[in-house]
Amino acid sequence: MHSLPIQLFDPESSTYTYILAADGEAALIDPVDQHCERDLAHLERLGLRLACILETHNHADHVTSAGRLCQLTGARTAAPSGCGIAPADVQLNHGDTLRFGRDEEIQVIHTPGHTAGSMCYLWRGNLFSGDTLLIDGCGRTDFQSGSAEALYRSVTERLFSLPDETLLWPAHDYKSRSVSTIGWEKRHNSRLSGRSLDDFVELMNNLKLPPPRLMDVAVPANRNLGLPH
Amino acid sequence: MHSLPIQLFDPESSTYTYILAADGEAALIDPVDQHCERDLAHLERLGLRLACILETHNHADHVTSAGRLCQLTGARTAAPSGCGIAPADVQLNHGDTLRFGRDEEIQVIHTPGHTAGSMCYLWRGNLFSGDTLLIDGCGRTDFQSGSAEALYRSVTERLFSLPDETLLWPAHDYKSRSVSTIGWEKRHNSRLSGRSLDDFVELMNNLKLPPPRLMDVAVPANRNLGLPH
Repeated sequence: MHSLPIQLFDPESSTYTYILAADGEAALIDPVDQHCERDLAHLERLGLRLACILETHNHADHVTSAGRLCQLTGARTAAPSGCGIAPADVQLNHGDTLRFGRDEEIQVIHTPGHTAGSMCYLWRGNLFSGDTLLIDGCGRTDFQSGSAEALYRSVTERLFSLPDETLLWPAHDYKSRSVSTIGWEKRHNSRLSGRSLDDFVELMNNLKLPPPRLMDVAVPANRNLGLPH
Repeated sequence: MHSLPIQLFDPESSTYTYILAADGEAALIDPVDQHCERDLAHLERLGLRLACILETHNHADHVTSAGRLCQLTGARTAAPSGCGIAPADVQLNHGDTLRFGRDEEIQVIHTPGHTAGSMCYLWRGNLFSGDTLLIDGCGRTDFQSGSAEALYRSVTERLFSLPDETLLWPAHDYKSRSVSTIGWEKRHNSRLSGRSLDDFVELMNNLKLPPPRLMDVAVPANRNLGLPH
């Protein structure tokens, strides 16, 4: 049986935050600013010491609480090295391993596409896919150093080569879905499954999405882990 | 480390549905009618055969999809014996054990109070508490055979005697909280912790809550597992 994370939701931006728990310690992935107290309360209720806080990328739709959580708990902050998040304690590179608990390993997978620096994290058969791969979808690639071609290669070469039973925990879902698997997304993802690179690039370049409402606020704030400059 | 459930959310009624997974099989607790397809899709993506569907009580705020899921998958339905849900395949009584997977046991705990028939379910250190015990709260006791006195006794005698580290997964949360522990609720639950029976009964009898919007539709529908009469 898989070890599973605890999934927390921000209804405003439809963002998922994850608590990975083991041996009385926790790793937190993609925490959201206005839920800082909620997330600390979860750690307290579960009796967990916060060991580290990870960002999958520089978010454009919400501000992280990583900086504040670091100040309040002393946890290490970790961010992808290519995201310009200078104050993070650990600058993560592809192939790195971040440890917490007695013997827990979070593997770092660089998956450029949604942004050039985006990372996915793998822990005990659970993939935290950020905005790279979503349930039956994927992140947009039309701003902030995004590249449809890079996202296609990241997903098809780096994520779809993981075991089929790998659980997929995305950074967002807009239809109250919680989890998927790599195997299902390989066979059925309506943006990526069975589509050529050229088809995918054309699809992504014609989505005509409005800019994220909070982009001009969130991106500079997140470069500083959500703390005032 | 705990085995954890997968938590699914209905934003309309703030109801949590749970998937318990083991050995390629699943048990589903408190599924919601309009998410029938979503829940089936989760089972398909995770490669799980639905073995059984449990109701914690006869809900007044949403209609269950248990009957439809039973028709579509052949899974057994199980309901508390005191809830008048006649078509359920299994009528559960206090102390019963429901099995799925190779060796998974769900223990049945009768916790009258929110309704006279309400049950909680315990699986591998996870308590699914229905509307009996919520995170920093509890279910209302002012309709549908509810009793503040009974709820107080159920929580303080039957739930607070579980190990402190037991994870508490409620049927609802209205503040984006996912999980708590028995230990935390014993010490900090603002309705129940450190309060006498008389104080609790007075508090509950003066909440002056409006009736649930869907009660007249949901309660009769749920008596038939959500299927047309």
